[in-house]
Amino acid sequence: MSLNHSAGRPRPLVRAAFGHFHTITTRWADNDAYGHINNVVYYSYFDTVVNRFLIQKGVLEIGRSPAIGLVVETGCHYFSSLAYPDTVHAGLRVMHIGGSSVRYEIGIFGNDEPLTAAHGRFVHVYVDAHTRRPVPLPAPLRAALEPLLVLPPTP
Amino acid sequence: MSLNHSAGRPRPLVRAAFGHFHTITTRWADNDAYGHINNVVYYSYFDTVVNRFLIQKGVLEIGRSPAIGLVVETGCHYFSSLAYPDTVHAGLRVMHIGGSSVRYEIGIFGNDEPLTAAHGRFVHVYVDAHTRRPVPLPAPLRAALEPLLVLPPTP
Amino acid sequence: MSLNHSAGRPRPLVRAAFGHFHTITTRWADNDAYGHINNVVYYSYFDTVVNRFLIQKGVLEIGRSPAIGLVVETGCHYFSSLAYPDTVHAGLRVMHIGGSSVRYEIGIFGNDEPLTAAHGRFVHVYVDAHTRRPVPLPAPLRAALEPLLVLPPTP
Amino acid sequence: MSLNHSAGRPRPLVRAAFGHFHTITTRWADNDAYGHINNVVYYSYFDTVVNRFLIQKGVLEIGRSPAIGLVVETGCHYFSSLAYPDTVHAGLRVMHIGGSSVRYEIGIFGNDEPLTAAHGRFVHVYVDAHTRRPVPLPAPLRAALEPLLVLPPTP
Repeated sequence: MSLNHSAGRPRPLVRAAFGHFHTITTRWADNDAYGHINNVVYYSYFDTVVNRFLIQKGVLEIGRSPAIGLVVETGCHYFSSLAYPDTVHAGLRVMHIGGSSVRYEIGIFGNDEPLTAAHGRFVHVYVDAHTRRPVPLPAPLRAALEPLLVLPPTP
Repeated sequence: MSLNHSAGRPRPLVRAAFGHFHTITTRWADNDAYGHINNVVYYSYFDTVVNRFLIQKGVLEIGRSPAIGLVVETGCHYFSSLAYPDTVHAGLRVMHIGGSSVRYEIGIFGNDEPLTAAHGRFVHVYVDAHTRRPVPLPAPLRAALEPLLVLPPTP
Repeated sequence: MSLNHSAGRPRPLVRAAFGHFHTITTRWADNDAYGHINNVVYYSYFDTVVNRFLIQKGVLEIGRSPAIGLVVETGCHYFSSLAYPDTVHAGLRVMHIGGSSVRYEIGIFGNDEPLTAAHGRFVHVYVDAHTRRPVPLPAPLRAALEPLLVLPPTP
Repeated sequence: MSLNHSAGRPRPLVRAAFGHFHTITTRWADNDAYGHINNVVYYSYFDTVVNRFLIQKGVLEIGRSPAIGLVVETGCHYFSSLAYPDTVHAGLRVMHIGGSSVRYEIGIFGNDEPLTAAHGRFVHVYVDAHTRRPVPLPAPLRAALEPLLVLPPTP
């Protein structure tokens, strides 16, 4: 699914905008009836790269963490199409670290392309696994995220 | 995945906000490792209700239409969790009809709940199936969409 | 994907072969690049109807049962194609109840069709949720399954 | 999902049993409510490795081939569990080449494991893309498959 530009909407991003990458292999079933990777599938890439980063950093143990990240918001802009058997390189960066929340951005690059085919956001709010009430971000999580934080331009 | 409120973010919507509904049965595989419907799966509901509406109205014939709708933007806010075997009622409304584009909103209601567990947006840009350049919305499509438009254009 | 006959392979089954039915709504993303429901998706229907039946009968409480059913074998024969937005009616029957295992067969019918578009098998072995060693089928499970058994044990 | 042995059922296979391998990255959404890769997802690996092999060999051009492979039968035996973020190595071999059909076997290995966590079969029948009637296997396809053919033991 491709559309290269439109007034007032985001533009594709370059690889240098992202501090961490994870390679994802596409699957036959990712393609929809138009022969391109379905818009839904990009979100499974987002989920995969965020959680993979957290697991690699030792700050997510599925089913064992007292604080869990609930997804409260996601979104994606699509710029050009991908199709199985393309290889996806998913870039990750952190836009905001709040008291209980983290806002990620994920860039999806196909094969050797320099610009995002799509990119989007993914917002976690951390809650107590039992009460489901917001809790402060655990310190090790915060430490893992800070290297990926994009600092807003200061004047 | 649940979080009932947060400053500055949208609030759940009621069923009366949506002019068209489609029932979707959940699947075992919709649940993720936390035992709730995965955030990605909501987008497969969005896709399903939008295309189903267009097929019912006779304005989408997969693989045969000269103009096809490319998905250029999607997004979702999540308010409370759902889980298989819940039944999903997906509400549809149209927020904007442009020259070549349509902006939908979809509300996801679980079972008999009055408020959206999640709701999101879905933006189609219509392009020529071969050249992939934007084309005017076909008149029958526009006619099918207008009854779902939330704020009709004022004269 | 359709092929109506072939020497030495199973033939489509009628609805009367199945004692329990569950309706499943298809999704846009179920269709693959050929415009038909992908062969993989049928297995998500199998999973859904088996677990739904067990939940309805009160013999499966996800995450709380001391004995859990592991899937050790599945299989499917495909006879004719289905496509979103078809409605699927999934029939369920039990072919064998063993000491620790259950063999189900599931028939997939599209819309009002009298014959299976596909049908397959699904074998659960019950194990202790912690040790993962086989355990006898719980008595309430056995009682729930027996009405669906095709050939009851002879004395 | 794990069960290491059972009378009368297949046993795990070694890597040397397969002549071609493709690496597949797992996804967060592959895990189901039990925290393991769902039984359905293995079939998306099967689909992916078979079609990827055919594309690499230049004998599958999605949407452009006059003869297309319909999936008429699939099946899987599961021996031990996998979970995201494991890496999957999918082995491929050909068990039978018929006049119009091909029977593949696919072995799924997790990370550096020497034995299949699961393996299964996948049967294509080639048909004319328009008439959907069986056609002889195209010669280039047959040539691509022969190196993967497992010859039955001769006396």
